[in-house]
This record gives sequence, structure tokens and C-alpha cells, in this order.
Amino acid sequence: MKKTPDIQPTESAAPQEKELRHELPHVVNEIVKSYKKVKQLSYSSQYPIPSRESIIQALHDMNEILYPGYHGHQGVDESNLHFHIGEATHRVFEDLSIQISKSLRHECRSSNRLCDVCTGLGQEEAMKFLKKIPKLREMLAEDAQAIYDGDPAAKSIEEIIFSYPGFKAITVYRIAHELHVQGIPLLPRIMTEYAHAVTGIDIHPGAKIGRRFCIDHGTGVVIGETTEIGNNVKLYQGVTLGALSFPRDANGNLVRGKKRHPTIEDDVTIYAGATILGGETRIGKGAVIGGNAWLTTSVGPGTKVIIEAPKLRYKGAISAKDREHVGDFQI
Amino acid sequence: MKKTPDIQPTESAAPQEKELRHELPHVVNEIVKSYKKVKQLSYSSQYPIPSRESIIQALHDMNEILYPGYHGHQGVDESNLHFHIGEATHRVFEDLSIQISKSLRHECRSSNRLCDVCTGLGQEEAMKFLKKIPKLREMLAEDAQAIYDGDPAAKSIEEIIFSYPGFKAITVYRIAHELHVQGIPLLPRIMTEYAHAVTGIDIHPGAKIGRRFCIDHGTGVVIGETTEIGNNVKLYQGVTLGALSFPRDANGNLVRGKKRHPTIEDDVTIYAGATILGGETRIGKGAVIGGNAWLTTSVGPGTKVIIEAPKLRYKGAISAKDREHVGDFQI
Amino acid sequence: MKKTPDIQPTESAAPQEKELRHELPHVVNEIVKSYKKVKQLSYSSQYPIPSRESIIQALHDMNEILYPGYHGHQGVDESNLHFHIGEATHRVFEDLSIQISKSLRHECRSSNRLCDVCTGLGQEEAMKFLKKIPKLREMLAEDAQAIYDGDPAAKSIEEIIFSYPGFKAITVYRIAHELHVQGIPLLPRIMTEYAHAVTGIDIHPGAKIGRRFCIDHGTGVVIGETTEIGNNVKLYQGVTLGALSFPRDANGNLVRGKKRHPTIEDDVTIYAGATILGGETRIGKGAVIGGNAWLTTSVGPGTKVIIEAPKLRYKGAISAKDREHVGDFQI
Repeated sequence: MKKTPDIQPTESAAPQEKELRHELPHVVNEIVKSYKKVKQLSYSSQYPIPSRESIIQALHDMNEILYPGYHGHQGVDESNLHFHIGEATHRVFEDLSIQISKSLRHECRSSNRLCDVCTGLGQEEAMKFLKKIPKLREMLAEDAQAIYDGDPAAKSIEEIIFSYPGFKAITVYRIAHELHVQGIPLLPRIMTEYAHAVTGIDIHPGAKIGRRFCIDHGTGVVIGETTEIGNNVKLYQGVTLGALSFPRDANGNLVRGKKRHPTIEDDVTIYAGATILGGETRIGKGAVIGGNAWLTTSVGPGTKVIIEAPKLRYKGAISAKDREHVGDFQI
Repeated sequence: MKKTPDIQPTESAAPQEKELRHELPHVVNEIVKSYKKVKQLSYSSQYPIPSRESIIQALHDMNEILYPGYHGHQGVDESNLHFHIGEATHRVFEDLSIQISKSLRHECRSSNRLCDVCTGLGQEEAMKFLKKIPKLREMLAEDAQAIYDGDPAAKSIEEIIFSYPGFKAITVYRIAHELHVQGIPLLPRIMTEYAHAVTGIDIHPGAKIGRRFCIDHGTGVVIGETTEIGNNVKLYQGVTLGALSFPRDANGNLVRGKKRHPTIEDDVTIYAGATILGGETRIGKGAVIGGNAWLTTSVGPGTKVIIEAPKLRYKGAISAKDREHVGDFQI
Repeated sequence: MKKTPDIQPTESAAPQEKELRHELPHVVNEIVKSYKKVKQLSYSSQYPIPSRESIIQALHDMNEILYPGYHGHQGVDESNLHFHIGEATHRVFEDLSIQISKSLRHECRSSNRLCDVCTGLGQEEAMKFLKKIPKLREMLAEDAQAIYDGDPAAKSIEEIIFSYPGFKAITVYRIAHELHVQGIPLLPRIMTEYAHAVTGIDIHPGAKIGRRFCIDHGTGVVIGETTEIGNNVKLYQGVTLGALSFPRDANGNLVRGKKRHPTIEDDVTIYAGATILGGETRIGKGAVIGGNAWLTTSVGPGTKVIIEAPKLRYKGAISAKDREHVGDFQI
């Protein structure tokens, strides 16, 4: 904690304070002027944009509906369950309708006349989603069971629902994917990026993922937009299902929307740190991909792939003094 | 921003709205029915489950007690410290007692008669934990010092307490580990998975970790349930201390609770991205494991292990146009 | 869910409760005593320390100013924009002034007399920062455009501002870097570690980063304190720009503040998982570094570097029963 001897307390702070606050209107003017100059970071309010906070709140409410008694309200039992879930479902309906409308309106904002339709559409799509919840719960129950069956550190299904980041990421993905399938823009990606922030697991809502999906630990997992995954697939932390280089059109712009990410068939296990790339790459049913493998070509069904571990060099019994000079990296 | 020309604003939204809301009671019925069908995702309230929110709140209060003046209340000095910490300690005692009771009751919910005992046990275990806080502070002070001594980017101990994710993860781990040692189920894992979410560092509360433990950067670190780590050990980001394949019993079920993760002796440094696997794997005192190393066998004391870096292929002076075709991956 | 048959409900909980609460004053005494013994984890309140919560709040307010209409207030349009941004700017000025003062005072707390000066200095530095916002917005608009141009999964600039963790991390870094350049201690690091927690991307505020910077996915990225990055640089998840071993002085203490991290020139792309280490390492203009590459030496301009992918071993058509014994790792 060094001193800063060059600073002399010669003036009292009070007059300085006033002078500085007087500069604020000018500063604000400059900022507002910059909104005209740099337009692309501002959002006109004529068609209000979705609210990230409301979308996250809706995800919390959906958690309460999917896993009653676990989150939120704690005194839920047979006598009040119906009222409690009824209330939560109404809340999700209202909030989701509004956010879906805003997302749709955001995409069609070039036309002024569509606003009423967007409002109706928001409700329609929200209702369509709510009707899928019983099916979603069946899938998620299978996911939870698959995690339990595959992880000796898991002591109970409750522990998984409560605390497993892999299960949290799958829950949010399955919700977002259904909305993505319904054609809602923006909102599904906001949902999965929220899950990414909370779990370190980055699943694009466009990916297609089968039943009994299991991600263990999960930090650093990336699953790209056009990935297809079958049933009974298990991934560990740091797995990337990515793309090779991107095709561009005649003007040099990226071609968006093509299949760029791999296909993983049923019963595949992919260990930590493995990287599988390319839209033509297909991992056959029952294959096992070893940790840190790097694959850009297909693998047949039932195949086991492991990397030849990089050779290690050993240097025995180095002294404590020498440890400073080993040349390994630190940041 | 394409238009959606197929949508015709022929109807006003209002009647459509009403019709849709009328469907909600039916949707709620279907959801509640699904609770009967998919039981494993619901939680009966007869024995209320621990509250993740209360557990996280208790962690915040413990931070205030461990590091007075840093978090929460800012006007703490000698004159009010005692009152302030007294109040925080009472609060932790009450909250932790309840959450421990709920965790215990969760495990023994097959019997109706144990409820009063669980309440008493919750307070007993909470008190046992609180009495360990002075010892915990001694360990954590050594951890903070070890981080400062090993990181040239650290400008002060204060910076470490305030902002280092490694120190945050170690703090939560040390709290959770003590509760794990006391035999409390569920709660310790909820604590460490909270730390995992906030720091990207995944330490199972069952791991045993010695004094002056240091994790730098830390995103992607995974330390499994039966890992044992000595004193003065330093890890960098992306290090995995994991298990080889899991043994199963005669019925094909996982055997839970066996030693599956490595033992790291005193004074070991493990650089970023290294993977060390298996319950029989032991890294000897003073060893240095290089970045990205992959080890499934033991290493003697004082040994330095580095990987032979994978060979690089260079292709000089490629043009900007060619860069699109390099075949490297993107997602 | 095993029973705990060894616990006998022989006593009612009530008396036990009272007895345990009576121990609390003693426990509190022991904790307060430990503050005298383990001083380095406590913070004396004479010079109050910065508040992490207020700093995060200020970051949220700055987001509102940088990206009006996106976050916070939603009903912003031409008629109220000026008032709204004016209010937010005043709020940031007040909060940032206080937190900067506290950070400065923290560093010069050895002297009692500097307090008034710190207050004035806090306002001066906060004002200096606010005047940079229009320039910051220009840079951030270019960053957002660079992300859009390079990612086929990005559907609009709005999606990037709303949900891309790479863009969030860059925003916080650019704010923190300006305050770091102004010589403010502590506060910039608290900001970037907040971004690290939320995005998994760890950028030290001391790093120097040019225009049109792009990080995709980003989990696990680490950019060290003395890294220098040119314009048009793109990084993928898991890239480390780190240091080799640290020099120590004659007393064995770390030498702090030297250039330890690499220099990346303009137009460089670094794919996922690559590690580039050392203060003398320079990646030349237009170079492309392949995924998982490991570099501790410089690379000339326009060079493409890829690793020879580790050899894979394949074992065909293994049966489901055998999959348990593959020896790959799990945690």
C-alpha cells in the first residue's frame, strides 16, 4: 500500500464538487448526440424490445411449474398445488405472451400495422408452448434419470434437480428449443445465453437433442446451432460440437442457416475436452469418443476412438529452487 | 429484418385474447395431471425441501462473518463490530439450523416420527459448524496469502478477497466440506454448485484439500468427490482431477462412494488444462505437471512432467482471400 | 433414501434449542477474537472499502447509457431520451465518484489527511470517464459489427447486444480498461471479475485491445494483464494468452508489472483452445492459429499454424457390455 505523496490536500473538496457537476449537462448532451452518430447500439421505443429480466423471470416461473415444490413457493401440497400452479401458469402465460409479441414485433417492425396481430400471436404462441409442458416434463424426467444412472457422485434425483448445472442447462434448452421450433425470434437465444451464463454450458436453441440427454460438469461445453443429437447421449465438460470454416456468398457475406455442425447418433458417449467439427461429420450409434479427441470426419457405429496421448517427458527429482525455472506457463 | 407478409391484420386482438385465456384452466389441469404421471420431478411438501435461496443467503452472511467489512455492511468498526457480527452469527445459526434440518429430514423422510429430532439435530450441527469459524479463517488467510505470493497480477490481499474467483470457490468449498464431514446431505453440494455457477470452478464438497491451496483463473477446473490434495498445491484453469471408468455391481448399477479420483501430495503445481485421472493415481510431493498433460498413472516426488507439444505445421504468408478456406473450426 | 435408525426421538427439541442458543454469545466472542489473530481478512472501516454491489449497479447504469432502450427502462423514445439518459448519467457520476474515492483512499490509507482530496479526485476521475462515453460507443459499435460479420448463428445486431457473452465481456473490459488507464486501483478488476463470473471470459483490465475485437462463445478465455492485441482480432472459446514462468527478485518475491503476456497483431484469428504464452511472443499480422495450438515463440505475419492432430486409435464395433470397460475418463 504505497502512499501517493504527490497529491497535496490544499483545496477543500466542496467547491471542486460543484464545478464538476456543472459539467454534467454538457456531458449528457454529448452522449445523446452520439446516439445520432452511432445508431446501431440504440433501440427505438416505438416497438419495445423484449425484456431480458422478464424472460428470466418467466424461466423461474416455468421451473416452479416443471418441478413443483423445489423452487419458489415451499409450502406446496395436495391441498394448494392446483391453485399455486394455476397462478404460476397464468403468470407465465401473461409474461410469455408479451415477450413473444415483442420478439415478433421486433422482427417485423418495418411495418407499422402489424401491432395488433403481434399481440394476438404472442398469446397464441404462449398457449401453444404451455400445452407442451406435460410432454416436456416426461422428457426432463428421463434426462434426470439418465444423469443419476451415469454419475456415482449423484446421491439422489433431488440433488440433480437442485444443483446439477447440466440438468439446468438441459431444462432451459428444452424450453427454448420448443419456442425456437415455433419460430419465435430472439427470445430463445436470450434464454439459452442466460443458461450459458449460469452453467458455462452453451447450447444453441436450434440444436436438435434426443431423449435421456446427459451433460456432466459441463463447463465449456458448446453445442452449435445445427447439431443433431440422438437418444442416450452423454457429454462431459469442455466438449465442442462445432463447425468447420463458413461458406460465404459471392459478395463475401456469410451464408447463414446451413447445416454446419455434426450429427451424433444414439448411445454415444463423448469424454471431456473432445472436439467434433463439421456438418457432414456423423458419429455412429454406440460410438465412444475419448477425452481430448479431435474429429472432423465421420466414425462408424460402435467404434471407440481414443487419442494417442501426447508423449510425456519426465525429469526426476528437481529441487525446489529449480521449480521457478521450469518454463511452464502461468498467467 | 424481413417482413412477415403472410400475416393479415384482419381481426382485432381483443376477442382472440379472451378465447385463449379460457383455455388456461384446462392447461393447468393437464399440468397437474402430469404431476401424478411423472412423480419424480415433484416434491411433496410434508417434509419441506431445503431452500436454495436461503442457503445462498447463509453463504452471503458467512462471508460477512469471515471477511468483516468487505461484503454487506460497510460501516463496521471496533465500536459496532461485536454487535454486527453477533447479529450475523445469530442469523446464520437460525437459517443454517433450518436448512440442515430440512436436508436431514429429506434423507430420513421414510419415517414420520423423526421430525422433532431433525429440528434439534439441525441446531446441533449448525452450532458445531459455527464453532469452526475461527479455524476456517486461519486456513482461508493462508489460502489468500498463497494466491498473493504466486500471482504477479495480484496487487493486494484486498483485491483477492474482493474479486478472485479462485478464492471465492475455495471459501465456499471449505464451508461446504465442513458440513459434508458432519454428514449433512444435499446442502453442501448445493453450496459448491452455487460456487461453480459463479466461478466456473467445480469442487465436490467431499474432496479433501490441504492448506495454502491456490487456484488461478479457474474456469473449467473440476475436482472430483474422492480427490485428496496436500498442502501448498496450485492449480490453473481447466485442470481436471477426475475418475477412470466406473465399476458397476452384479446388477449393472454404479458402485457409489469408492475412491475414484487422484491423490495430489504437498507442493505440487498443475498447469492449465492438465487432466489427472483415477483413484490409484498419485502425484508425488513437489512434482510439477505441465499444461495439457494427460496422466492416468502415478508420478514420483519431485518429478517434472511436460507433454511433448504437438507438432505444429506452418504455412507462410497466406493471402486474406485464402483465410476463408483454412479449414479451421468455428461454431 | 435410507433411514437413520440410530437416532432416537427421546427428547423434545425445545429444551435442546434453548441450550444451544445460549452458546451463541461465546461463539461470537471467539469469532471476534479471531479478527485480532487473523487480521488480514478484516477490513477496518475508518476508510470504507469500495462496494462490489455499487460497482455492479454502476455497470448496469452504464449499459443503459451505452445501449439506450435495451436494458433497464423500456419506454425510452425521442421525447424522454434526454431526461432518461441525463438521470442515468447523474447516477453513474455520483456512484462512480464514491467508488473511485474509496478505491483511491484504500490505496493511500496510510495517511489520514488525504480524505478530502480523495473525494474531489473521485469526482474528477468519474467525470473524465463519462466524457469518454461517446468514443467508447463508437468502439463498441464496431465490436458488435465484427461479431455479426463473423458468426453465421447471429441473426441481428440486437441479438448480439442482448445475449452474446463475448460482447458483454468486451463492454465491461472497455469500461474497466479506461478506468485502469486513469490509474484507479481495485475497481477495474472488480468490474472484469464480475464479467468473468457472468461470461466465463477473464480479461485483465490492464490488457490493451484494439478495435473490432471479437470473442465467440468465450467460456474459458483468459487474457493476461500485459497482453497487447491489435485491430480485427478474433478469439474462440478456451483461448489462453498467458505468461511463462515468473521472474523473482533476489529475495524470492515475484517481480510485478513486467510484460509477461503475448502481443497479437492486427487481423489475427485464434481458434478454440489455443494457448499462446510469453511476453516476447508475437503473432504477426494476419496469422491464423489453429485450435488447440500451443505456442511459446513468435509467428511471422500471414502465417497459418495448425497442430498435427494427435493420432487417433479406432476399435470397431464394441458391444454395449464392453462400453463399461473402455477406460475412458469420467468424474
